[in-house]
Amino acid sequence: MTPQENPGPMTADWIAVDWGTTNLRIWAIDGSGKTIAHRSSAKGMGKLAPHEFEPALLDLTEDLLSEGRGTAVIVCGMAGSRQGWAEAPYKTTPCPPPTIGDATIVATRDARLDVRILPGIKQLEPADVMRGEETQIAGFLAGDPEFKGLLCLPGTHTKWVFLDGGRITAFTTFMTGELFALLSGQSVLRHGLSQQDMDMDAFRKAVGDMDKEPARLAAELFGVRAAGLIAGLGPEQARGRLSGLLIGVELAAVRQDIANLPIAILGSDTLARTYRTALESLGHSAGLLDADTITLKGLTLAYSSCSKVSS
Amino acid sequence: MTPQENPGPMTADWIAVDWGTTNLRIWAIDGSGKTIAHRSSAKGMGKLAPHEFEPALLDLTEDLLSEGRGTAVIVCGMAGSRQGWAEAPYKTTPCPPPTIGDATIVATRDARLDVRILPGIKQLEPADVMRGEETQIAGFLAGDPEFKGLLCLPGTHTKWVFLDGGRITAFTTFMTGELFALLSGQSVLRHGLSQQDMDMDAFRKAVGDMDKEPARLAAELFGVRAAGLIAGLGPEQARGRLSGLLIGVELAAVRQDIANLPIAILGSDTLARTYRTALESLGHSAGLLDADTITLKGLTLAYSSCSKVSS
Repeated sequence: MTPQENPGPMTADWIAVDWGTTNLRIWAIDGSGKTIAHRSSAKGMGKLAPHEFEPALLDLTEDLLSEGRGTAVIVCGMAGSRQGWAEAPYKTTPCPPPTIGDATIVATRDARLDVRILPGIKQLEPADVMRGEETQIAGFLAGDPEFKGLLCLPGTHTKWVFLDGGRITAFTTFMTGELFALLSGQSVLRHGLSQQDMDMDAFRKAVGDMDKEPARLAAELFGVRAAGLIAGLGPEQARGRLSGLLIGVELAAVRQDIANLPIAILGSDTLARTYRTALESLGHSAGLLDADTITLKGLTLAYSSCSKVSS
Repeated sequence: MTPQENPGPMTADWIAVDWGTTNLRIWAIDGSGKTIAHRSSAKGMGKLAPHEFEPALLDLTEDLLSEGRGTAVIVCGMAGSRQGWAEAPYKTTPCPPPTIGDATIVATRDARLDVRILPGIKQLEPADVMRGEETQIAGFLAGDPEFKGLLCLPGTHTKWVFLDGGRITAFTTFMTGELFALLSGQSVLRHGLSQQDMDMDAFRKAVGDMDKEPARLAAELFGVRAAGLIAGLGPEQARGRLSGLLIGVELAAVRQDIANLPIAILGSDTLARTYRTALESLGHSAGLLDADTITLKGLTLAYSSCSKVSS
């Protein structure tokens, strides 16, 4: 192999970063727009003090940086929170997703880094916040700028977002995923619960029960335990029922909206498919989009306008 | 001091035991019905293998036992569960509270013990179970045998019990207390929450919000965090709101019943008073009764019929 055939490690034209509470994920993009590296680490915002962000980023990207210039690094997510690397103040609804002009420029010690953090979005009444999802929404709108409807972004804190005319008009965050983790892992329910598979018939039944009587949530939760003790509810049924109760009460809260608007789900993993199953069991359809693709698209949009701003 | 003045430790005529998941509590009663000792330990059912129950009981009671006869020990609670000391099979609703004739007699190695465990009660549809509360209900009914209404038994798993003609006709258990413990101690909400005091105005407001829109629970939970971040919600307000949301959605589930029936709360601690505040904020009144007194009354009733059975 000659030097001509192997020019050494490639360098990135720019780097896309999704920096959440739990994980740090980067994509290195070359001048033709191709992803030349996709890496992640467990150095999420929640584990880092402000001075630890730059080293955590360098750990994942140093071999991809060019000497003699600052490589653009476009960041979305919790790295921009007050407890993060540098605060990127929220935009306020109603608003379009933030652009690079809204980003906070972060001073770095290493001159090979040119870091910009995209802001999150807040809603004043009812109080709500997002950081990271706004960039996914930008990516989604790039493909469907006139979408008028509801986006569902499943996760630990699932968000339902109203879009109209390219703007985020309102949104609501549900603690459904965190409730599921606490109840399945640490409550009295853990004794009778499969830690893996769930019975989808039990799931659909629970979604329907909550559609009818959402206020009974805390009673139906204990009912999962009681049915395990005296009615032979199996571990996979119990897991399906627990998930169905929690997602079902969430859907009962957005019932009016899902009845009247098209729905797109930003996600294609198990959780996203579970949301689709729940919606279908109530007679609604929803498309799935790959969340990683959409996130990278949103960051790429921001970088593109960054280049325009610079040139 | 002469031996005449100090006749040595008193012995119990019988011993009342409330053996829950977390704690073991005993009352030693003399021949005149007076409590001569009230003791507790952390050796709840959840920490004990079957062979460890007898030693745990002796630790608290050995100096109170008579030689040469079996002292009656009347037990209610989780000690009678399948994972407990000896299973005391459930009675099934509708039924009056269990009597000593329903108790399971436990074989002991120590002949100074004559142990009987009162059964719990199950409801087949919707599936639900209680162990311990049935004895409190017996104590309550002793003072008001014709009560037709709702008992509220606040706790980790709060129970609402329908009574009519001395019988338990139906009941519902809510995981409200366990949800509060998980959310206040281990969720993202813990960051903005007072670990002690709660603002009762925020509590009442939250009860009212859930009365109107119970399905929004998981959204309002995240709203506590968001309002702390962007709307200046203080730690004591956050604790009040969290408690009010959870108790409020529970009350929304029993709304029909509390509107039409008298309510008595079995408890007089902070949690019981919090339930009363919530009921009052929705326009309902409820009396408080001391739970310890009622528990001992229920166990005493069982012992009294035990003596009759024996004689």
